[in-house]
Amino acid sequence: MAAKIRCHQLRINLSNGKVEEEVLPEQDVEMLIGGRSLGALVLYDEVPVGTEPLGENNILIFSAGPLAGTAALGSSRYCVLTKSPLTGLYLMAISGGHFGPELRKTGHDMLVIQGRAEKPVYLVISNGSVQIKDAGHLWGMPTDLAQEIIKDEIGDGKARMTCIGAAGEHQVPYASIMGERRAAGRGGAGAVMGVKNLKAIAVRGTKNIDVADPDRFRKAVKETIRKMAGSAQLSRMVKHGTVTFLDDLNDHGILPCRNFQEAQTEWAKGLYSGVFEDFIVKHTHCSPPCATRCSKLTLVRSGPYAGAVSEGPEYETLYAIGACCGIADMPALIEADYLCDRYGLDTISFGVSLAFAMECYEKGIITKEDTGGIELRFGDATLLAGLIRDTAFRRGFGEILAEGTRRMSQRFGKGSEAFAMHAKGMELGGYDPRGAKAGALTFACGSRGGCHHAGGYPWMAEMYHPDPKARFSIEGKGALVKRARERRVIADSSIVCTFPAILGYSDAELAGMLSGATGLDLSEEDMQIIGERGSNIERAFNVREGLRRSWDTLPERLLKESVPAGSTKSQVVELEPLLDDFYSVCGWDLKTGIPGQQRLNELGLPKIARDMRSVK
Amino acid sequence: MAAKIRCHQLRINLSNGKVEEEVLPEQDVEMLIGGRSLGALVLYDEVPVGTEPLGENNILIFSAGPLAGTAALGSSRYCVLTKSPLTGLYLMAISGGHFGPELRKTGHDMLVIQGRAEKPVYLVISNGSVQIKDAGHLWGMPTDLAQEIIKDEIGDGKARMTCIGAAGEHQVPYASIMGERRAAGRGGAGAVMGVKNLKAIAVRGTKNIDVADPDRFRKAVKETIRKMAGSAQLSRMVKHGTVTFLDDLNDHGILPCRNFQEAQTEWAKGLYSGVFEDFIVKHTHCSPPCATRCSKLTLVRSGPYAGAVSEGPEYETLYAIGACCGIADMPALIEADYLCDRYGLDTISFGVSLAFAMECYEKGIITKEDTGGIELRFGDATLLAGLIRDTAFRRGFGEILAEGTRRMSQRFGKGSEAFAMHAKGMELGGYDPRGAKAGALTFACGSRGGCHHAGGYPWMAEMYHPDPKARFSIEGKGALVKRARERRVIADSSIVCTFPAILGYSDAELAGMLSGATGLDLSEEDMQIIGERGSNIERAFNVREGLRRSWDTLPERLLKESVPAGSTKSQVVELEPLLDDFYSVCGWDLKTGIPGQQRLNELGLPKIARDMRSVK
Repeated sequence: MAAKIRCHQLRINLSNGKVEEEVLPEQDVEMLIGGRSLGALVLYDEVPVGTEPLGENNILIFSAGPLAGTAALGSSRYCVLTKSPLTGLYLMAISGGHFGPELRKTGHDMLVIQGRAEKPVYLVISNGSVQIKDAGHLWGMPTDLAQEIIKDEIGDGKARMTCIGAAGEHQVPYASIMGERRAAGRGGAGAVMGVKNLKAIAVRGTKNIDVADPDRFRKAVKETIRKMAGSAQLSRMVKHGTVTFLDDLNDHGILPCRNFQEAQTEWAKGLYSGVFEDFIVKHTHCSPPCATRCSKLTLVRSGPYAGAVSEGPEYETLYAIGACCGIADMPALIEADYLCDRYGLDTISFGVSLAFAMECYEKGIITKEDTGGIELRFGDATLLAGLIRDTAFRRGFGEILAEGTRRMSQRFGKGSEAFAMHAKGMELGGYDPRGAKAGALTFACGSRGGCHHAGGYPWMAEMYHPDPKARFSIEGKGALVKRARERRVIADSSIVCTFPAILGYSDAELAGMLSGATGLDLSEEDMQIIGERGSNIERAFNVREGLRRSWDTLPERLLKESVPAGSTKSQVVELEPLLDDFYSVCGWDLKTGIPGQQRLNELGLPKIARDMRSVK
Repeated sequence: MAAKIRCHQLRINLSNGKVEEEVLPEQDVEMLIGGRSLGALVLYDEVPVGTEPLGENNILIFSAGPLAGTAALGSSRYCVLTKSPLTGLYLMAISGGHFGPELRKTGHDMLVIQGRAEKPVYLVISNGSVQIKDAGHLWGMPTDLAQEIIKDEIGDGKARMTCIGAAGEHQVPYASIMGERRAAGRGGAGAVMGVKNLKAIAVRGTKNIDVADPDRFRKAVKETIRKMAGSAQLSRMVKHGTVTFLDDLNDHGILPCRNFQEAQTEWAKGLYSGVFEDFIVKHTHCSPPCATRCSKLTLVRSGPYAGAVSEGPEYETLYAIGACCGIADMPALIEADYLCDRYGLDTISFGVSLAFAMECYEKGIITKEDTGGIELRFGDATLLAGLIRDTAFRRGFGEILAEGTRRMSQRFGKGSEAFAMHAKGMELGGYDPRGAKAGALTFACGSRGGCHHAGGYPWMAEMYHPDPKARFSIEGKGALVKRARERRVIADSSIVCTFPAILGYSDAELAGMLSGATGLDLSEEDMQIIGERGSNIERAFNVREGLRRSWDTLPERLLKESVPAGSTKSQVVELEPLLDDFYSVCGWDLKTGIPGQQRLNELGLPKIARDMRSVK
């Protein structure tokens, strides 16, 4: 049968209203599949070095994968690519929900948004049309209500949506993009959308999403369903979502508490899955097909937060706004999660930024004079609602918090940089790498900065390793992380969700599904090559922006301050040998961290190889 | 052509899950048309004297009118009838929105809910089926989110909804029922729904709604459209909704301020339509067809309430939570309106109850000891959000506020009854009857208590009377109020919205539309008779419960305390002569207030006439 892999791109220029349809070069699509990798290539090609993230020339790519809208479990996803206002580097933010499949039903696999509308607008995209509509009345409106109003206005309750809140409008560099109750959270794609005056995108399509080889596809999907039914980890997730892992992370001394001052605490047990369970009112999912149902609808029924509802919080939020801020008050965290979604703030960056400010306050680096009178104490849950709103609207001390951890530490000085818990400007995800050393490479070398997204596989491999000391060793961690990155890239390019992809699918199974869907005949090795290609394109984007080995680093706290107590006691991160190892397995120059000519050419990326040769 | 007037009733018993369909007796339907009047008759027949409002034997009727779902302007409405937990008497609460038309599309004109589910449930009603679904996970959830989740669950974004919030679940006697962003607000129908463990009703129908005589109907509708286009009052409402009248009411000394201590204030200008206008982001309506678009989507874009959005507040909310509580802070009131809707509280009863408590606090009748430490000062907008939540969840001082004004005054004593601004337990609407005397009868004799709903026509007639002193006179006010009541009853039975009905349609025009829709040949006089019938059925329901002349009264403040300043200075209400006049024109016994045999028989209500004869 004919290969069905095509990428239909829809390009909308908000400056002049021009709309273009394009089919991407077949060779690129076959080499990169879709989603994240293909988006990375478009970003690489179209966003020249030095582009201002919040300038008119930055672009915003919404990219779905060839599995979106098919029966592959966990495939209802899309990702957003842009140059990040938080890191100034490559950004990919990924989200579940109905937007990706619905976009494909309009006949498009990728949206590219260029330029900047003069006034707030929203887009309505259907099979054959793009409408640019006035959004003046929606500007300032919470994401949930704005989506509801738009559905009313276009008279289509089944339209699927992606939308920004006040944080995006005010260009908070860690503003998220919300689709229904799900976030493309990290790195500030919402701020890029905000500066473009784009409040929301509604899509509604009716086209069929066919697969090239239905028999092969069906067989591959069936096999994954069978296999996933037997996964113990996935069963745990069905019960408690991602929060199930919080218990283990604290027990192993990997849960960052009070801004990474501790990695295991008694009070964090207030965040355990057993506590969380009492607030779950419904087990749900991004959208079918999904067997994990990691999404938990939570509701607070009594006490000061009664009436608070969220779809979540998931683990990273309980880590960031919870453990990292010393807060183990589940109802307050459910409300905080909801508010971050409403106002469009990334929960990780908000939580870690607040934790940093709390430590600065604790150490006297900042005082009430700086906070506008707020006593910024670890553990004070009553601060959350007000500070979330203030941050999204950039006012009061929220104006400072909105800068994120890196800029705050530059502003505050006085040694605070040592415990500003970011990498390349992105606030770290919820794993203390002193307790699981591979995580050091995940954070230090992440294409988008201190990102949690690539971290799942390494920390699980380390935490659940039969040898309890293995996680403290640096041996073989370069290869482990390289493999994890590549697996994530190919999962994100397909796109399939982290959880089945990491905990369920083998590369062979993913290759089977992709082969069935696309008509390409992909092997397990092809998967790895595609992953490595994507990973290197991202690296090349960042190298072109100036990234060198010295940028691949971590906060001093992780390198020099050992964990004070618990299962990880006395550990620090030995970063330099880890980097040597990782660069070696990646084929990157040991001194500069620049991807090597030879490997790039082997990967079929000669243009990027040439570009890398010319960087100084 | 054949008369098309039928009332298809769907009866659902939550105690045993039994569902029955019934067609109401044709004679009843022809005599009462539908909506409110027909619902009143069902209530009269099925809720025996002494029924406990929050007991299992109370019923809840959702009634649409014969115009719902047709092209008649303002006909997208439904009403809820039950015995009120606030007044212990007849209750009809009315709402705009899509629920009424959608119910009719399922082939039903009226729902009767009996019994009590063992556990929280919601109903899904479509053309041919009724499903009773578990709502355990939705119990405690705000109305907006619960509706969204239900739409997701039943996979139908176009289902129409009616739903309670925490206030209904906690049986607050002034809990509302919310449909989308609209309330059937008054008298605590939400508490009855709550005690029945019924969280929500979703309806979705596909049947056509035909009219009996399309030509006659179309002609009548066309005529009303032509006429309404020329209405100056409706033009004002298109611009500022009901808030447009707040300016005039204050200017005339009819706006109750600080719990009716004043009727005209300088600070209330902070609530004027010009201020309100700055927060309007969209002019909208309950649902088409509507030419008034009185519904204003408001948004706060900066300051401490930034991000607050509401569809409203409309006049009564700005009066009750605003002027009556001494609060002229528009952003705070937009947020308060939204919160009342989310948690399902009637804004009028909440506001007036709070105003009463504020005056008690001001006078030292209650202290911080009673309020749990809260300084309950007039004008303090920062109290609102917390007290709304506390009232809905019945906790802290909210437990007291949740009792409503009458019960609070009984609890507090110390003369506070004199300024407890309710009639028959229902908190008064936003018109000081000392400045527009007909309003005294509207409130004192309202079938559901101190209800604003029947008040529009009289106060407009008085306020805009060419003789500026006419409003202080008691001459002819009985006839004015009788006529206004009847006009409202027939409008609510059709159902058409207050605004076109009062400001646009004549009885003849309404008769024309109803004749076209139903195939009955109705005259202007028929309209008045139907209105009088409905009004007397309601009265009879209350008389049977014990209502006599002495119950038709008003708070002492209105009868004995004159207005201190402004255009209404020195006025009080002369209630007794007003009652004499009103009873006379109604044909009610002057001593007892019981409807007279003769008039009831003339109206074709012999059974009720017999019942009235036997009450003691």
